[in-house]
Formats: sequence, structure tokens, C-alpha cells
Amino acid sequence: MTTAKMSLGAFLMSSGHHLAAWRHPRAWAGGGLDFQHFKKLATTAERGKFDAIFFADNLALMGSPELGQFTTAGDVFDPLVLLSGLAAVTERIGLVSTVSTSYNEPYLLARKFASLDHLSGGRSGWNLVTSATDLEALNFGRDKHFEHGDRYQRAEEFIDVVTGLWDSFEDDAFIRDKSSGVFFQPDKLHVLNHHGENYRVRGPLNIPRTPQGYPVLIQAGSSEPGKALAARTAEVVFTAQQTLSNAQAFYADVKGRLAGYGRRPEQLKVMPGISPVIGRTQSEAEDKYQQLQDLVEPRVGLAMLAGMAGGFDLSEYDLDGPLPELPQSNSMQSRQALFIDLARRENLTIRQLYLKVAGARGHHTVIGTPKTIADTLEEWFVGQAADGFNIMPPFLPEGLDDFVDGVVPLLQQRGLFRTEYSGSTLRDHLGLQRPGNRYQR
Amino acid sequence: MTTAKMSLGAFLMSSGHHLAAWRHPRAWAGGGLDFQHFKKLATTAERGKFDAIFFADNLALMGSPELGQFTTAGDVFDPLVLLSGLAAVTERIGLVSTVSTSYNEPYLLARKFASLDHLSGGRSGWNLVTSATDLEALNFGRDKHFEHGDRYQRAEEFIDVVTGLWDSFEDDAFIRDKSSGVFFQPDKLHVLNHHGENYRVRGPLNIPRTPQGYPVLIQAGSSEPGKALAARTAEVVFTAQQTLSNAQAFYADVKGRLAGYGRRPEQLKVMPGISPVIGRTQSEAEDKYQQLQDLVEPRVGLAMLAGMAGGFDLSEYDLDGPLPELPQSNSMQSRQALFIDLARRENLTIRQLYLKVAGARGHHTVIGTPKTIADTLEEWFVGQAADGFNIMPPFLPEGLDDFVDGVVPLLQQRGLFRTEYSGSTLRDHLGLQRPGNRYQR
Repeated sequence: MTTAKMSLGAFLMSSGHHLAAWRHPRAWAGGGLDFQHFKKLATTAERGKFDAIFFADNLALMGSPELGQFTTAGDVFDPLVLLSGLAAVTERIGLVSTVSTSYNEPYLLARKFASLDHLSGGRSGWNLVTSATDLEALNFGRDKHFEHGDRYQRAEEFIDVVTGLWDSFEDDAFIRDKSSGVFFQPDKLHVLNHHGENYRVRGPLNIPRTPQGYPVLIQAGSSEPGKALAARTAEVVFTAQQTLSNAQAFYADVKGRLAGYGRRPEQLKVMPGISPVIGRTQSEAEDKYQQLQDLVEPRVGLAMLAGMAGGFDLSEYDLDGPLPELPQSNSMQSRQALFIDLARRENLTIRQLYLKVAGARGHHTVIGTPKTIADTLEEWFVGQAADGFNIMPPFLPEGLDDFVDGVVPLLQQRGLFRTEYSGSTLRDHLGLQRPGNRYQR
Repeated sequence: MTTAKMSLGAFLMSSGHHLAAWRHPRAWAGGGLDFQHFKKLATTAERGKFDAIFFADNLALMGSPELGQFTTAGDVFDPLVLLSGLAAVTERIGLVSTVSTSYNEPYLLARKFASLDHLSGGRSGWNLVTSATDLEALNFGRDKHFEHGDRYQRAEEFIDVVTGLWDSFEDDAFIRDKSSGVFFQPDKLHVLNHHGENYRVRGPLNIPRTPQGYPVLIQAGSSEPGKALAARTAEVVFTAQQTLSNAQAFYADVKGRLAGYGRRPEQLKVMPGISPVIGRTQSEAEDKYQQLQDLVEPRVGLAMLAGMAGGFDLSEYDLDGPLPELPQSNSMQSRQALFIDLARRENLTIRQLYLKVAGARGHHTVIGTPKTIADTLEEWFVGQAADGFNIMPPFLPEGLDDFVDGVVPLLQQRGLFRTEYSGSTLRDHLGLQRPGNRYQR
């Protein structure tokens, strides 16, 4: 059988993705900084033959202290530190870390991902984001975050520097020949000498080319500049889509842009986030979801909406009235558009809106039996809405176990998902080619 | 018995510290990027009850490509990535990473070390350096490295920002109370609001205070500004000292400065580097050393001296003539002074000088049986030249095995070194107090 297989990422987050996850009686509230918790989750995902585990990132304590106190936002590892630890205790699964281009140095970032790729035997992936808030800017000597267009323009240059640095050495440069004393062949070393608008970086990187050539490049912005960046450079797009038809439109849009950059559709995988709430019966799943929803306090729901609206404060408005007109945000523009669209389409009050997105911050929540979840994934996959999914368990560790034990076997029975890893790198799992070195003859 | 015990670090480096280590028949030339190699070394050091493993760092390919091709300089992990991996496969040993203040953001560095401290259960240490070369500056948008005084002034402010961020949350801020929904107590959160000459960082850090309060602060510069920074802030000083009397003078100097900052002598540990070349007999050890020395080619020896002289090119001079007068360097000033002093004192030719420092780049090399090595360590420790040592095996993995199997048991028999770990954190091992939070009542 050579039926195309879907890809699956496990998007892991402290106690889980639901806004009230940590308060669930069976969730591990201290999970955010418990390495053994993440080791267990990574092992579970690997048992489920997932392509990768995936971590988000923020460079500030998100939300005001008044509201942050009710969330797990202050309880997170630097994801590259965590994934480096997890690399040592896993064998096959990919390791994807979000890192912002706005407040990192390209030389340091290129080196860290190259190191993780070497350490893990070619299992690393970089989810490029540009950061979203002034809270982050204030931690890096700025009063305001870069404007949306500016930061994507910087990201475009940043990624060119990083990939250039990853090509510093040709693949076969290092011969380590004890008798001649030649460690690497100097004609296979290339100095980048990048002089751009935002960055000046000489190179070379002080590490050999990595097992994957480049760590897998992932992009999570769905705005216009985000899609343009993805079409030119990304190999995976992680996106939030609420409906099949929206997801299909997004899929066609992004895939359709690739030819303009000389790329083929299969060179970019579209992976929407899906948050599955799983029960043995439909009513058990719905009860589980309702139990989580009942734990969302209004102030926390409002804080989440404010965060997604770039800080716009909704607390003056009637919770049971309609969403007011919002100013265009400099923050996550595509996410803001998504939830405004959702509120209008379903005619939601403010309270209904925050409860609707509390499950996974705007990602699609599916509630039901393993069969219901598998049916949805199949429908989206077959319907050209997705090449795979980033699975966002509502609370942990149970939510991942439910998926691996219940949904994965169904997907495997239907021939939609691997029953064993066939390769050793994240590129192998995703069916992505290893990029050649730009300098190699 | 309550005799004071010495501390031991294992300073690990690809194939070993000798300039020609990787060419030795029993050295692992591919060690630099082999995680299993480092896992084995870390496990060996832990079996030997070392306080910590220790890694250096550079933010460029050091040396010209013409000369770098003969060294392992291009074959190194980012040390924080490597140590995060090693944290996952070790239990007790401390994990020390060098990171430069000159080309990192304090917020990112504070968060990465805090993450490693949480991940490892309180075993992290930060060896603060300020970087040394223009090669590094060129990778970060600068033409020239910061002047020596400037970069120490920046480091002074940097460390204040980082420790301030580590105090963002009081130790008991996170209560994670499911019933009330309060995750952390907001009155135990403190916003730094640092506005200094070089850095503006608001905070708070988005991670709880760490098991050690602060990761252990280590400083490796021995220049005047380096010693001043150490006396104010460092808990361990790593230093290169060629003779007992020089080491004693350095020890007295640094310890004597502490009172000026309201600190006691035992709050700062002085740990010179020592490179032991170990044989079952004196002549076996000397043969082993000579075998390494014979593998040093003149161009590589000259390149090392040039690196230590801030790029000053000695290749025009007679290899068998005296060291010329050298201009004051902006690079590692204390290291330059050390090797000029060595050449003058022992009346060395250029060739003799580079061979003399090829073993460990200016650190003291001791050649002999385990008893000879143990005698030297005891003499320095008892003679108030050192509180412990950073052991720099000439080649790996053999050099570390030799030390752990041969020297450690002798030190233990003499009551100079622990036979078992008594605590769980690096601070416990080193006998350093856990710092209180500046905001805590």
C-alpha cells in the first residue's frame, strides 16, 4: 500500500491546552516544569508513532499579573532546553521548538538548532514566529514591538541568514584524518558575509552541516506576510482553522503560492491544530468538555480574549452582549481575524466566544469518541484541508493517552497513519527532502 | 571527619584538551559532536563524584580557516544544548556552561539557565565570559569586539539584570491551587524594571525561581576587571595558574577582595585548571605526553599562540628564537600576560613556548603517576592555592578514566575528596549557600 499517510504532531503544553486544564482533577498542575512529565508524554507520543512533539514559546509572562495568576503562563521551560533534554531520552520522534526571530540573534539560533539536530540524529524542527506583544519587546530594550510588516520583513532576512549559516560547511567537509592532521577540508568551508538591512553576520557557523541539512522549517503565522514567508521558505505550516471549508481555502491558498517560488505542493505540509476531547461515548466526551468549561472563570476568559486582541480590554462590555468592533491589532492578526469571524458567524456573545475558544485558543475542538475524532481527521485529510494535524490535548497526561490508545489505532486501521517509523529523521517522517548545500558542486 | 574537601570539575572538550588530542591513536576524533561520547564522559565523572562537568564556548569558528582545518574548533555543540541533554541522563553531577555576556540577551540567558536548573533539579552553573575576539563580533553585527573595559562594564550590568530576573518570583509564589483557581500569588511576583546604561529589561521572567535560587555563578577572567567582577558576584573562579606561588598569590588576591563587597572568603571558590597526563609509571606518563607533543605541527602551535595573543602573528619570527615584544591585546589579557611571563621566566623559544602551552592552553600540566597528580593537587589545596580544580584531560575518553580510576581513590583515601554525594544540587556539592530572594520578607 502506498496510500499517502497523514502527519501527526503532539503539541504539548504544561497541563494541557484547555484554558482551565490545570484545574481539572486528573490534570497534572505542576506539569509545566516537570521534566519527567514531559519525558512520559514524549514517550507516549513516540509509542503512537507521532512525527514530532511541538512546543510553543513566549518571551514574557503573558497577560497582566492580575490575570496571569490564574493561568500556567509563568510555569514554562525554555523549549530548546526542554527539547534538548527530551532528545536524550527518545529515539525516533521529531522535536519542534518555537523560537522568535524578533528577539534572537541569527547566529545563536542557527547554532542551537544545528546542535539539537546533531544531538538528536536529525530530529529537530524550528517553528518560526515573530512574537506578538509589547510585553516581549519590553524585555529586550524596546518600548513597542516591531510593526507587523517590519517583523516579517526582518524574519525573511533572518531565515536567509540562518540557512546560509547552516551551509557553512559542505556535508563531507569533516574528514578528521589523524595521519595528515587535517580535521576539515578548508575548500569545503564557506563564509556567508551577510550584509543586509537588519543583520550583518559574517559566519561561518562553528558546527558541521547537520544530519538533516537544515532542521525542518515550520511557520505558524497565517496573515498575508506570514503566508508569503511560508510559501517561500517553510516546509510545514501550523495553522488554526475552525471549519473544514476555511481549512480547505487556506490549504489551497498556501499550496497555490508555492509555484511562484519554484516549489512543488508536496514541499510544504499544512497542519492545522486540532484539540480532541475524547470519551468512550459521545456523552462522556461532552461531559468531560463541560467539566473543563465550568472551570473557566470570566476574568480568565476575558484575559485570553484580550491577549488574542492585542491587549484590547473587553471587561467594560456586557459579557452576555455582542463582541464590539475591535481596532486592527499589531499582534497576531490572523488569530484576531479568526475569532472575530467566529463570533459574527455564530452570533456569539462575549462569554460564548471565550468559552468557544477556551479549548485551544482558536484551534478547532472536536468532541466525541475515538471514531468521531478519526472521522474528522480523515475528512479533513482526504478533503485537502490538511496534510496532517498538530494534536492539542485538552489536559495532560490523559488527553494524549486517549488519543494514542484510541484514535491512532483507528487511523492505522484505515491506512491513514504509519504503524512504524520507516526513517530516522523528522524529514523522513514528514516525507520532506533533505536540502542540498548551496555551495556544493 | 570534617576536613575540608576539595571540589573537582571535569572540563570536557571534544577529543581532549591537548592541542593535538584528536590525533592521538586512542582519542575519539569524532567526539565533538557525539552525544553518546559525552554521555559516557558525564557518567564517568559522576562515578568519580565530581562536583560538575564544565564546557567552554566560542561564538565563532576560532582561528583562520587555513589553520582551523587542523583543529577541532569547528566541531562543537552549543554547550547549553549539550548540557540540557546530559541533564536528562545524569542524576547528581553539576552542569556548567560557559556563556558570553557580550552577544546574548540577558532575558534569554536568564531563562535558559533557569530552565536548565529546573530541568536538572538544581545542578546548573553559568561560567560568565565576555568573549575575546573580533571574529565573534563579526557574527553579531559589529566590526570590532567591545573594548576590554567596556565589556566588563557591560558584564557587571548584565549579571545584575540576570540575577534580578531570577528573583521575579519568590520561592513560594506558585501554589497551583485547583480549587481557588490561583496558580501563583501575585504579591510574590516582582517586576524588575531595569533601566541601565546598556540594558533595558522590564521582566518578570516567565519561570518560577529555581531550585538553587540562582544557578551557580562562575567567572573565568583573571584580569583586573575580571577579578573585580568575580569578587563582587562570582561563587567560583576558574583560573589558569602555572606555578604554586602564582596560584597562591592569585588565591590570596581574589579572596582578599571579598571583604570589600561584604562577602566572606568561603563564598568564593578558586579552581585552577589542571591538565593531568597520567601513566602507571613516570616514564609511561612522560612517553604519553611526548607522543602528544610530537603530533603538534608548528603552524598549529603558532596559530594557538596567535589566538592567545589576540591575533598577533608570530609566523615571521624564528621558531627557535625568543618571543618578541607583544602589543597589549584587547583579547584575553590575563592569559596573554601568563604566557609572556612563562616565556620570560623559563627563557623559552617560540617553539618551546607553544609546546609548553599545547597541553592545556596555559593551564598547568602535571605529568606522572596517580600519586604524583594527587600529591600536586594536595599541595595546592593545602597550600591555599586552590579550593578545587577543573580537571582538563589531555585526550578523551582515556584521560578522564585515568583520573577517576587512579587519582580520585587516592584523594578519597587522604580524606581530601568525597566518597559519595551528600546533597543533590551543585550548590550542595560546592558548599555554597542558596541565595535568598531580594524581595522576600
